[in-house]
Amino acid sequence: MVLGPSGSNMVVTELEAPDSDGAFFEDRLVVEKSKPLLPEVIKVLSSELGQGILGLEEEFVSLSLYEKLKGLGRDWVGISRDISAMRSVKDEQELTDIRHSIKISEQAFEQAKEFIRPGVTENQVAARLEMAMKEGGSEVPSFPTIVASGARASNPHALPTGKKIGENEVVVVDFGATYHGYASDMTRTLFVGNPPKELHLAFDAVLETQLACFSSLRVGQPLSEAASLAVRSLEKYGLAKYYIHSLGHGIGLEVHESPYLSLTSNDVLSDGNTFTLEPGVYIPGLGGIRIEDDFLAWEGKVSKLSSLPSRL
Amino acid sequence: MVLGPSGSNMVVTELEAPDSDGAFFEDRLVVEKSKPLLPEVIKVLSSELGQGILGLEEEFVSLSLYEKLKGLGRDWVGISRDISAMRSVKDEQELTDIRHSIKISEQAFEQAKEFIRPGVTENQVAARLEMAMKEGGSEVPSFPTIVASGARASNPHALPTGKKIGENEVVVVDFGATYHGYASDMTRTLFVGNPPKELHLAFDAVLETQLACFSSLRVGQPLSEAASLAVRSLEKYGLAKYYIHSLGHGIGLEVHESPYLSLTSNDVLSDGNTFTLEPGVYIPGLGGIRIEDDFLAWEGKVSKLSSLPSRL
Repeated sequence: MVLGPSGSNMVVTELEAPDSDGAFFEDRLVVEKSKPLLPEVIKVLSSELGQGILGLEEEFVSLSLYEKLKGLGRDWVGISRDISAMRSVKDEQELTDIRHSIKISEQAFEQAKEFIRPGVTENQVAARLEMAMKEGGSEVPSFPTIVASGARASNPHALPTGKKIGENEVVVVDFGATYHGYASDMTRTLFVGNPPKELHLAFDAVLETQLACFSSLRVGQPLSEAASLAVRSLEKYGLAKYYIHSLGHGIGLEVHESPYLSLTSNDVLSDGNTFTLEPGVYIPGLGGIRIEDDFLAWEGKVSKLSSLPSRL
Repeated sequence: MVLGPSGSNMVVTELEAPDSDGAFFEDRLVVEKSKPLLPEVIKVLSSELGQGILGLEEEFVSLSLYEKLKGLGRDWVGISRDISAMRSVKDEQELTDIRHSIKISEQAFEQAKEFIRPGVTENQVAARLEMAMKEGGSEVPSFPTIVASGARASNPHALPTGKKIGENEVVVVDFGATYHGYASDMTRTLFVGNPPKELHLAFDAVLETQLACFSSLRVGQPLSEAASLAVRSLEKYGLAKYYIHSLGHGIGLEVHESPYLSLTSNDVLSDGNTFTLEPGVYIPGLGGIRIEDDFLAWEGKVSKLSSLPSRL
């Protein structure tokens, strides 16, 4: 992406040109397939911006691409932090797209949850859910759908397998859609039959933790405070030792982006932030619980964007 | 990934540890979540390999990660080319996984193709196909499934939309599964009703081109020669101007990897290569044709791994 002072420009190869039809860039340069792309990018940058230092996203540019860019005779500086800060504040159009992405994922989940019963495989549940998201207009899943049943649910990142859901098992489903490129990200934990009592207690503790964190959030607050509150809330139930990831993250063009809600985060909650709260408890050999919803900070208030019931 | 002389090692965070159970590494170091990961990686590398120069994959390591690695006091050299060359030669286990990945995608396509008819949306076809692949054991689609109907098929990378398939339209479906991480990648072009005559002629030319390239391939041959043959074959029909991408690419842990079959490729066909041949013709406003199959070079012979009929 090239942002010029006179408007936005993009440079694409011939092969990618049809995909960029209707993009929001004001000007577009299509480079013939016989020409290398990067020198053309440099020409556009130079004509728009002159001979100053150029910016690149150092979190995304590979070392190999960087070496090629350096070879073209310009100086570069990393601007990932600036781009990330800009992107963490959504405008109304972005918010509309994120709301729609959440709606697609929730409607798909409502359909897929009817299939969750003993004897159905994790793969089948994930397949149904991803199909329903795509039929609902999702471009791609915002990440590979997680369906983890029984003891497998104690792995927060368990991809679905051919394992059949058993009687009296817990099932964790973590899923998201994309719409106009914008991600949603939610998790629901279901009880099939009557799983072990510890998991019922953990469910209550995780839900209480999520609600406590939501209630506590204030625009302008360091997000490490909410992360710390989550640990204290689970500690009351002796479950903090089973809580092995952070509290949440921003959602937008990436499913994980700024702001980050972790004990070590330096981010502060700002108007325009869209983010998840996803406390979880993972008990080896027994199973796991995670509840994840999507939230918004807007005009000084924090509200919940997702609307699926937490208990299913 | 860390390859040590005494065996293979991996270093993972606590959060990712469950996902690495059963991985093929001999030793595994799980780093507590309170500790930063990279210094632990350096410690393992130093104890296994001493104080020499270390290798990294410069095509994947971001500039930002590289800066962090440099800050840990070791020297690094890019080894993407070596890793890529190693990976382009498959062993028997890898071949078994790729064959299975192809089988999953072909069986899924057979199911999904029953749904391809006027009035069904591109999104619905893609959703069915991806569901069938997942139900068949695919981990994730090896790339976002392409379903492009009518004039949209003139865009080689058209993602599916809510557009309904019309009467007398061409439909290009480009899809692939992953199994044990290994990708398949195929394309079929279907005629719904009776699309324009130019597309029938283009179909014959593209199929003839794919078969001619397959027949011509010899182990030890520069792959640019096959790419050049594809252009000459389409030129006979006046269609080379509508052929805007390369002839094919390796498949493996990535869906696009070495060897590359293009006019500018320096790669030579070697035993153990698994790759696609995917000539295509894209006529703006009218539609497109692409036929893509998966192939293998093994013990001096080139064979076709995929088995779906080309004409459907």
